[in-house]
Amino acid sequence: VRRYVAVVGPAEANDEELALAREVGGLLAAAGCIVLTGGLGGVMAAAAQGADAAGGTAVGLLPGPDRREAAEHLAVAIPTGLGQARNALVVGSADGVIAIGGSWGTLSEVALAARTGRPVVSIGGWWVQDTRGVRLDMLAADGAAEAVRLLLGRLESVP
Amino acid sequence: VRRYVAVVGPAEANDEELALAREVGGLLAAAGCIVLTGGLGGVMAAAAQGADAAGGTAVGLLPGPDRREAAEHLAVAIPTGLGQARNALVVGSADGVIAIGGSWGTLSEVALAARTGRPVVSIGGWWVQDTRGVRLDMLAADGAAEAVRLLLGRLESVP
Amino acid sequence: VRRYVAVVGPAEANDEELALAREVGGLLAAAGCIVLTGGLGGVMAAAAQGADAAGGTAVGLLPGPDRREAAEHLAVAIPTGLGQARNALVVGSADGVIAIGGSWGTLSEVALAARTGRPVVSIGGWWVQDTRGVRLDMLAADGAAEAVRLLLGRLESVP
Amino acid sequence: VRRYVAVVGPAEANDEELALAREVGGLLAAAGCIVLTGGLGGVMAAAAQGADAAGGTAVGLLPGPDRREAAEHLAVAIPTGLGQARNALVVGSADGVIAIGGSWGTLSEVALAARTGRPVVSIGGWWVQDTRGVRLDMLAADGAAEAVRLLLGRLESVP
Repeated sequence: VRRYVAVVGPAEANDEELALAREVGGLLAAAGCIVLTGGLGGVMAAAAQGADAAGGTAVGLLPGPDRREAAEHLAVAIPTGLGQARNALVVGSADGVIAIGGSWGTLSEVALAARTGRPVVSIGGWWVQDTRGVRLDMLAADGAAEAVRLLLGRLESVP
Repeated sequence: VRRYVAVVGPAEANDEELALAREVGGLLAAAGCIVLTGGLGGVMAAAAQGADAAGGTAVGLLPGPDRREAAEHLAVAIPTGLGQARNALVVGSADGVIAIGGSWGTLSEVALAARTGRPVVSIGGWWVQDTRGVRLDMLAADGAAEAVRLLLGRLESVP
Repeated sequence: VRRYVAVVGPAEANDEELALAREVGGLLAAAGCIVLTGGLGGVMAAAAQGADAAGGTAVGLLPGPDRREAAEHLAVAIPTGLGQARNALVVGSADGVIAIGGSWGTLSEVALAARTGRPVVSIGGWWVQDTRGVRLDMLAADGAAEAVRLLLGRLESVP
Repeated sequence: VRRYVAVVGPAEANDEELALAREVGGLLAAAGCIVLTGGLGGVMAAAAQGADAAGGTAVGLLPGPDRREAAEHLAVAIPTGLGQARNALVVGSADGVIAIGGSWGTLSEVALAARTGRPVVSIGGWWVQDTRGVRLDMLAADGAAEAVRLLLGRLESVP
């Protein structure tokens, strides 16, 4: 069984986040996973680039209706035309999620993953707690290798 | 122009949250707003009940395909059949959002609202900050009346 | 139990189709049904106008993300932002469908209704048969009153 | 530029339709196209099988939320969780459509393709005309090779 892992993060990312995304994409591809992204730039494009360079398959699910807006390095680009509702497809098509950096769009994807019981590993990104002071369950990783290792470990126990 | 306000919150809510949701729904209806919800129980059902009791219109956008899963007190119940992607419709159909209590589904809606530039007021609920320590922009209110007042104030400046 | 009936038809309609749509909207409202439409002009707007004039509730599910594109006379306008995927919501939210006139968009809705077992009545519109010569099941009506009568008759036997 | 072609048809298909679908999938893959399907059985599965056997890439967009319902031979399977609204994604992700055999679901996809200006070639399947007697524009092909040749010819003139 091939695993599908979504790599989510902002379209506007800094150099450190882009390097992390490329590394995560490459490590996931090397582990035999299909890499899912939102199909646009920044962290999404870098993850696809990393997967592609490692000989893997990157799939982009775009919010708009036009494939020409897709980032390079995607083996398959699906222009969903669903707007922000496509975030639910990126997450719902994945067995697990790795979040790199933070943005509101990214947070919506992390929250949907948690909502639907999918494991999420965050590199940087978000600190979320409720008003009773309980930090909610999101694995934190210090780098790309740890993030991939943590996530794949969690996926092993999923049927 | 009639305003549409989404009231979002968990299906499993405590008595305080339910009372807040009823009050918010009633105040929004009294102010002439249409109250949008996710169409199920808990905070969603209580907001619809409050709007209905005040003579207003509550609209539910359900995740499943079957209208019989809708809460009572909805003037209109739309079984979207979109699963969690319906969260984007609840937010995208609203001019602004009031969040009561916290859950991952609620957080996804708050994040989508912020992502798309819609004002959000939170009663209780979430504390979200990024790793650089910056709390992100979400108005906090102490009760129902303040939440409605804050949100409607923000909507006045929206065309 | 309140019935939801979708009235589907082209945005570019002739005077006869518009008059039929207004009459159908009014008759459905008088029978206590909520009238669902795609929220735009032509047959959609005329059905909403007829429902509204009869004191009923018309709901529009728009393809775009902007409520300002909604037709008048809608009690509730939901900008789904789903593009043509909203056709599935119009049909999926309805207990039955009345089609007035023909267009490819209308045909997609009629086909989705048949696909999901919802009764469809067509006034004018389409003649569809497969290559083996079998005309497929779509009730045909000569006018607004017959269409509403036929559809409500079929809905009576649906739980 | 790689072309994406949707092969649509019923999940319950006869042997002739399945053979046609395999051949169409293979010819499209040989021509360098990505083959899109609805991800389930019958014509969808056969088209994927043909593409895969020819060394191509078949992508399935499933209506349900569970990848385990996907047919074999798909390089990428996306469980959209959108129900029948996924038909709009199958079509909207394609540059053109080949329909094999007929069903209401297939007809909804053919209609959506025509609605959005995408070329459609039909093998067998539907005869659609409006009440004024005008048959609507759908290219008909006698076999797999002619269908692929006709569609790719139409796509050459699309930017």
